[in-house]
Formats: sequence, C-alpha cells, structure tokens
Amino acid sequence: MAEIASENDLVLLLGKDGKRFIVRLKRGEEFHSHRGRILHDDLIGQPWGWEVVSHLRYPFWVLEPSIHDLIMDARRRTQIVYPKESGYILLKMNIRSGCRVIEAGTGSGAFTIALAQAVAPEGRVYSYEEREDMLALAERNLTRVGLLDYVELKQRDIAEGFDERDVDALFLDVRSPHHYLLQAREALKSGGFLGAVVPTANQVSNLLRGLEEEGFVDVEVCEMLLRPYKTVPARLRPVDRMVAHTGYLIFARPVAVVEP
Amino acid sequence: MAEIASENDLVLLLGKDGKRFIVRLKRGEEFHSHRGRILHDDLIGQPWGWEVVSHLRYPFWVLEPSIHDLIMDARRRTQIVYPKESGYILLKMNIRSGCRVIEAGTGSGAFTIALAQAVAPEGRVYSYEEREDMLALAERNLTRVGLLDYVELKQRDIAEGFDERDVDALFLDVRSPHHYLLQAREALKSGGFLGAVVPTANQVSNLLRGLEEEGFVDVEVCEMLLRPYKTVPARLRPVDRMVAHTGYLIFARPVAVVEP
Amino acid sequence: MAEIASENDLVLLLGKDGKRFIVRLKRGEEFHSHRGRILHDDLIGQPWGWEVVSHLRYPFWVLEPSIHDLIMDARRRTQIVYPKESGYILLKMNIRSGCRVIEAGTGSGAFTIALAQAVAPEGRVYSYEEREDMLALAERNLTRVGLLDYVELKQRDIAEGFDERDVDALFLDVRSPHHYLLQAREALKSGGFLGAVVPTANQVSNLLRGLEEEGFVDVEVCEMLLRPYKTVPARLRPVDRMVAHTGYLIFARPVAVVEP
Amino acid sequence: MAEIASENDLVLLLGKDGKRFIVRLKRGEEFHSHRGRILHDDLIGQPWGWEVVSHLRYPFWVLEPSIHDLIMDARRRTQIVYPKESGYILLKMNIRSGCRVIEAGTGSGAFTIALAQAVAPEGRVYSYEEREDMLALAERNLTRVGLLDYVELKQRDIAEGFDERDVDALFLDVRSPHHYLLQAREALKSGGFLGAVVPTANQVSNLLRGLEEEGFVDVEVCEMLLRPYKTVPARLRPVDRMVAHTGYLIFARPVAVVEP
Repeated sequence: MAEIASENDLVLLLGKDGKRFIVRLKRGEEFHSHRGRILHDDLIGQPWGWEVVSHLRYPFWVLEPSIHDLIMDARRRTQIVYPKESGYILLKMNIRSGCRVIEAGTGSGAFTIALAQAVAPEGRVYSYEEREDMLALAERNLTRVGLLDYVELKQRDIAEGFDERDVDALFLDVRSPHHYLLQAREALKSGGFLGAVVPTANQVSNLLRGLEEEGFVDVEVCEMLLRPYKTVPARLRPVDRMVAHTGYLIFARPVAVVEP
Repeated sequence: MAEIASENDLVLLLGKDGKRFIVRLKRGEEFHSHRGRILHDDLIGQPWGWEVVSHLRYPFWVLEPSIHDLIMDARRRTQIVYPKESGYILLKMNIRSGCRVIEAGTGSGAFTIALAQAVAPEGRVYSYEEREDMLALAERNLTRVGLLDYVELKQRDIAEGFDERDVDALFLDVRSPHHYLLQAREALKSGGFLGAVVPTANQVSNLLRGLEEEGFVDVEVCEMLLRPYKTVPARLRPVDRMVAHTGYLIFARPVAVVEP
Repeated sequence: MAEIASENDLVLLLGKDGKRFIVRLKRGEEFHSHRGRILHDDLIGQPWGWEVVSHLRYPFWVLEPSIHDLIMDARRRTQIVYPKESGYILLKMNIRSGCRVIEAGTGSGAFTIALAQAVAPEGRVYSYEEREDMLALAERNLTRVGLLDYVELKQRDIAEGFDERDVDALFLDVRSPHHYLLQAREALKSGGFLGAVVPTANQVSNLLRGLEEEGFVDVEVCEMLLRPYKTVPARLRPVDRMVAHTGYLIFARPVAVVEP
Repeated sequence: MAEIASENDLVLLLGKDGKRFIVRLKRGEEFHSHRGRILHDDLIGQPWGWEVVSHLRYPFWVLEPSIHDLIMDARRRTQIVYPKESGYILLKMNIRSGCRVIEAGTGSGAFTIALAQAVAPEGRVYSYEEREDMLALAERNLTRVGLLDYVELKQRDIAEGFDERDVDALFLDVRSPHHYLLQAREALKSGGFLGAVVPTANQVSNLLRGLEEEGFVDVEVCEMLLRPYKTVPARLRPVDRMVAHTGYLIFARPVAVVEP
C-alpha cells in the first residue's frame, strides 16, 4: 500500500474510455494498446491515482488493481466463479486470513485468486484439477497476481480423495459434486464448511440428495444476481442486458455421524 | 480453529428445526430456549460438529459460527448492509488483511463486523457515528463477536471531517453521502476505494453528480439480489418471497486533480 | 363503460389508505368495513371516479375494478396464476376474443377469470377440475365477476381425456402436466398453443422430456419477476420484499407427426 | 382459426434451428432465406402444424403466428414495449374487447399491435405520434399484421391535447409523460386508466410528482423481469444473459377534483 508505483507492482491502467489494462511493472518494458504506448519506466515512481499519457497523448489513470479487477482479468478457458458470487461464498464459508481451504477443480484459477487473497498470509489453498492445461493456466494467473505462494496446485482425479485432513472449508466446482461427498467429508474438519457451484437445477437436486444421505446439515441453496446501472445522474437506469445466470450456490456443513 | 469448543468460544447451536442461536461459552452459564436448557459446561470440551441434547431432549448441532452468521445475528436498530452485499463490497473495495478502512456511519455495526474480520489482524477500521446509542449498540455487537480490537469507534458528525489520512478504503452508509465527498477525498489515499450504499434512486443520482464534480473515476452502480431456494431435492424451487431491495451500491476512486 | 355506477355493476371502493373492496351493487344492500358503512343506494347513480364517504366520514373512491383487481380479489384456496404471469401467457398463447381454450385444473378460478375475459364474448373456456370443492369455489368467483357465461366448468380426472377437439389453446396447471400430453394433443388443433405452469424445476425437466417425446415444437421456459416500487417521488426505491417465485412457465406447440 | 393456411393468412415459418420468419401468403410469391426457397403456392392449402421443406431440403414448421410473434417481429427504430410488459399492462389498464384507448407516442407500433388486438373488433385505438417517419413505420407494421382497421394514427404534438374524450384508458410512452397529465386527464373518462413507461428512475420521480399534484389515485410503479431458461431437460438452467431493463411501468387513475 505504498504511495508510489514501484517495480514489480501490479498496475491498473484505466483509460478515459473505461478500458482496463493490468500490467506488472518491469524496468525497460513497454505497455501497448490501440491508445498508444507507455514505458514502464515512466510509471515506476509515479504516485498512485495520477494520470499518464501514452505516446498518442491518450490519458490513463494509474491505479492499484482491486482483487475484483484481478479476478475479472484472469485469463479463462472455463466458466469462472464471478466476484458477485465469490465475495458471498467467502463470508458463508467463513474463509479468512489463516484458513486452510481445499478447492476442486481449479479451472482457470479465478476463484483461487479470491481464496488465496482471503487466507493470506498464514493460510493455504489446496487446489485440485485433473486437466494439466488448466493447471498451467491457473498457475500463470496466480503467478501474475503474486498469489501463488499461498496455493498448492495438485493434478488429481478427486475420486481418489484429498491429501489434507481437517481443512476449514472445501469448495467444489466440478461437474458432479455429489460424487465426491465422502472424499469431502474425509478432508473437512467436523463442522467445517462445504460449498459448491453448479450450473443446472438437476445438479442441485443431485447434490441435495447426496448431502441428505451423507448427513450434512445447515444446507442452503441460492442464486446471486448482479444488476449494473448506467451512471448518468440525470438518467439513472439499469443497463440493457445483464448476466442472467452463472450458477447455483450450495452450502452445507458436515457433522459427526454417531453410530447407534 | 481448534477441534474442541473451549471457554470463550462463540458457538452456533443449530436446532434440528433450523433455528440458530449464537452464544459465547462461559463456565457456569446456561443456554435457554423454548427447546430447553443446555449447560455451557456440557458444551466446553465438546468436539465441533457434534450433537448436544437439551434437558427437553431436543437435539442441537454444535458449530462454529461463520462471519455470515455473526453479521446476521448482530442486534440491529437500523437497516444493515447484508452479507449478499458485504462480500461483494469487500472485493470491489479491495479490503483485505492489513488495510486501514474508514466507515461512516457505524449504525448497528453489522458491516463493521465484516470489515473488522477482513482487515484483521494487522489492519484497522475507523468507524464514525453521530448517535451515541448506535455507537453503544455497535460496541456491544463487536465485543460479542470478539472483533472490537480491530475497530476504533468515533462519535462524530462527519461534516467535520475524518481524523485519518491516506486510508485504503472509505465506505459511506449515511443519508446524504454526496455531502461528504470532500471529507472522503481528504481521508482517502490517492487512487483509494470509495464505496457507498443508499436506499433510494434519488440519492444515487445525487451521489453520481457529486462524484462527477469532485473528479472521482471508475464509477459503478449496481444492485445485488439474493434468491434463496427450498432445499427439497425432488421439489427444487425458489422460496416464495425474497428481499426485493436493501440498497444501491456505488463505487468510485479518487484521483489527483491536476491544476492546469 | 357507462359513466354512472348502476345496479349490478361491480365497484371497487378504494380507501384513502389504499385498502381495496370490490362489491356488486344491489339496491337495499350495505357495504361494511372497519372504516364504516356505505349504502349501495348511495353508490347507484354516482359517477365513476368520485368520492363517497362512509358513515364514519371515511372517504373512498368509486372506481370500476380492472380485470387485475378481479383476479387478485378472487377467493383462493390454492396457489393462483398471478397477473404478472397471466398477461404474458395470454400473449404467448395467442388467446383473444373468439378463442376456444381448455384449462386444467380450474383451481380457485383466478386464471379462468383472465381467460374468460380474453375470449369473451364469442369464445369459450372449458375448465376441468377434479375436486368438487374447488369447482364450487371457482363457480362462485366467476359468478361474482360476471364471467361465468363464457366458461364451462367440468369435474373430471383429465387422465380420461378432454371432450373438446381442435381447441386453439390448452393450459395445464396441474401437478404432473407431463402425464397429460397425449390428452392435450388430442384436444388441441394442429399447431395450437400449449402452456403450463409448475412450481418446481424437477417438474419442468419432466415436462420438457415429455414435450420432446411427443413431438411438440417451439418449446420455451421462463420465469416472470414483478418488482414493485414505493411511490414517493423524492425517495424512489423498490419495496422491501417481493414475490420470489410463483412458478415456471412452459410453452410449446403440437405439430403433425408424419408416419414414415 | 381455419385448419388450412389460406391466401392472405399470416404464417410463421419455424425452422428446425429455431429461426422464425413471418410472411403473408400471396399466390405466386416466394419466401427466401439462407435455408432455401419456398413457394407460397405450396403453403396455401397446407394444414397448420405441418412441415414444409425448402428447395434446399431444409424443414420448416407451418404455424399461425401468435400476437407475441407479431409484436417481436415488428420492424422497429425505437425501444419498444415488450410482451413481458404489454400483457401485464393490458390487465392493469383493463384493456379488452370494445375499449377505446389512446396511445402516445406510437413509436414503431409494437405496443399498438397489442392494443389493437385487445380492443378488436368493436374497440378503437387512437395513437398519436409527432414524427412522420415513425407513423409511416407503425402503419406498415399494423398493415402487415392486419390490425390497422382498429387504429387511428394521428400526427400531433400531444402538448396540444387529444381529440377524444371519455376514453377508457390512455398510455404514455413519451419522453416526459409528466408534461402531459392535464391533456391525459381531459381525454380520460373519470376513473379511467392511465399507464406510462419510462426508462429512467428520474422520469419516474417526475411523473410521480405530477400524478400527486394532478390528483391521480391508485398509483403504482413496478418493473417486470423475464428470465428465459434453456430447454434441455437434463440440464435445466437459465440462459446466460437476459434483458436487465426495458422500462419502469407506472399506473394511476384520474378522479374527480371537487372544488371546495
């Protein structure tokens, strides 16, 4: 939270047209866009919140990117968990500084970014993914935002189970989460937090059935809708089109099954 | 994140009927509900995720409360910022472990709880409120959840300005946020994060006008809608009624105003 | 559309507090509410849009009720199809003056009111219901609003099929609409309009499966959400709570199945 | 509602890919699309609900278009009132067969189509529009769907007032509806139905202020949201994106202002 942009800082360049570019500052490198070129050397030492001008005289604001910006900027090859959902998930699953959390699958790593920042600096994210190409992409995304230190990426079919025990929270973003409830229960501490996201109503029903059978409690299902507005004061109104659906969120907690 | 409930821990007692009770364990005390009585001494030493039974033989699950539970459990005399909004606000305003954040007004302290947990242990929340009775309520709510150490409560009319300088983020939950933009800019670091919540569209327009005049950039307005579902697998459907509105969220960033 | 309220007219008495009462004018009768008594004889001959005052000096506006008012005023013992859905259904299913339409089940008759008004005066609604008590209730509701002439109420288990052939449109508001697609197809004209409402996602899946198998085309599923606002000009905002769900709407059209 | 498509009928050709084409059958004419050519002569005499095949062997279903199809198919140069709103408006404003209704402005005539069908055959729509080009477009749209007989199109600045008196309902779809409340009141029968649609919250506030001043009662404001679903039974889920906003709906009723 320094007041001057320094080498290795992530910088959000916000064009006057609202276009957003995130770059990590490196001496000698250049930022290019259709609005022109800016030398990193001209940004290093620049105070945050100031304006720079490209060689085409186009002005950009020099800002620290938020975690929201970093999530939205992650390169993706899959549907991601969006900030409209991820902030709520973190609160519901009580994920905070110091927590040990499992995520499966890693996907593009967008939600891994949110998890890593939430548990840093003492906590840890164990993120499982079957596909090697996705893991490589997630690693690039995490490296880019400087959060890889808080994450262990593991290539694994989670049907084989998780390595960790007594984790605080476990999040399933896989096709058939109801297939992995025994594995999840083994890895979670008693009374921990299970979360999942699935795109279809059928998957929700399947997961609810599994959660009932496996003795999870405090089961909740919801959707989050984010409705953006245009920001003209004299003509306040929602935008024309919005995201109608990314997924259904499911939360539950594993409790002790007492033998009779 | 101990595995055994200990004296001074906050405990969520979750009844089989879904009723939720949050208590702090104290040797010699008792929990009472219409479902019967439980001695705290019988809870201390109990593993998390186990069942206890009241003297009326009614079963409760013994669980750690989540930050979501704590926010919803805060005693309130005002409209609060709900978890559906607060998780998203934290991501948008980049509020994380170590941040220095101003909030005004404190109100019942529900969002203060979310802020305090997000910035702990190294960060700090400076929360301003004009009304003495609200401050006292917020203090009780923060003490109850063990987060008061991360918060400075200040009784003040914010028209007089804030004491802090260069804070990372500043959140306005007051009747006329557009009246306090100069004060907010003075307290925020250049390029910091301003957020606000207001219940009416007229207030949004007023605030947008002020943000334009004061040279804030990256202005966004949105609403969050949370739609809960009933959790019967064979009859999946949204609940009958939902919250239609708590408030409009507005975000912006102060940038340097360069004299010509 | 006379300008004077006459005997036998339906009248909406709208209190200054927003309370709504619908009565049919009869010489010699009285309207009673906690706001006082009004003689029907004082209403008969009164111009529409004028004020009357109860014997307690409480003012009411004398208005023609809309079809929306009549639907919402119907006595109900079941979930009904609300105006937010019924207006859309009429457009999607092309139901208009002169149409012959089947409805099953009748339920409380709220949607039957909308259908009857839409097809009047030349069209006809054939409404099937298994339960005698519901049929009696629907008959009272239809009689009250003066639309029974356009409706034939039939007590029947629709598994036995419908009496009519070549109807323009057929609407299913029954527990398992996918069980009655053959019966629906038999009654509908080729290329007619099928509609259904079901409360759960599982029922939607079942119905979609049935529609695929039975060769219906132009299949659509949607939800309608109505978000009301408070009407204070200087404090414009949505109401606090809204209906989150009444049902999913499904539309499809039967086409000729050509033997190979 | 004949069972055979005849010359001059409007036909919906529904491709197997879901593409929709609406044509009026004329002997000797041809329908062209990228899926191939169909002779109108081959459609005339064809039963509804049957399949035809283009010269490229691509199959189309031959269906009667619904009023919903006709509204969505209208050529437009303006934002239109969509069926998700127009069905509800008709119920709220009690617009039915036989009504006399004023609309301003006509725009592309999409809502005029809904109004015309609702009041036919005995009722009448008086539709005002200032711009000649829009009137010409609306006339083409109404002619195309065969509903022009029920509509009088008038080129006029409605600040000058409406020609009609004692109409049942009056709908304002103009930029500043609050400027025309005196004109609306003059044209409406006492206790009639006023409706309006506006895109921005500021306009809603202005209109609410005007309605209060002019003594309208039973004032309501709402939004309608239509959320479409994908229709795969085993993967039921909302579509990815939806319309977030077309406009706010406002309803009110003019009542007699009694001189003291």
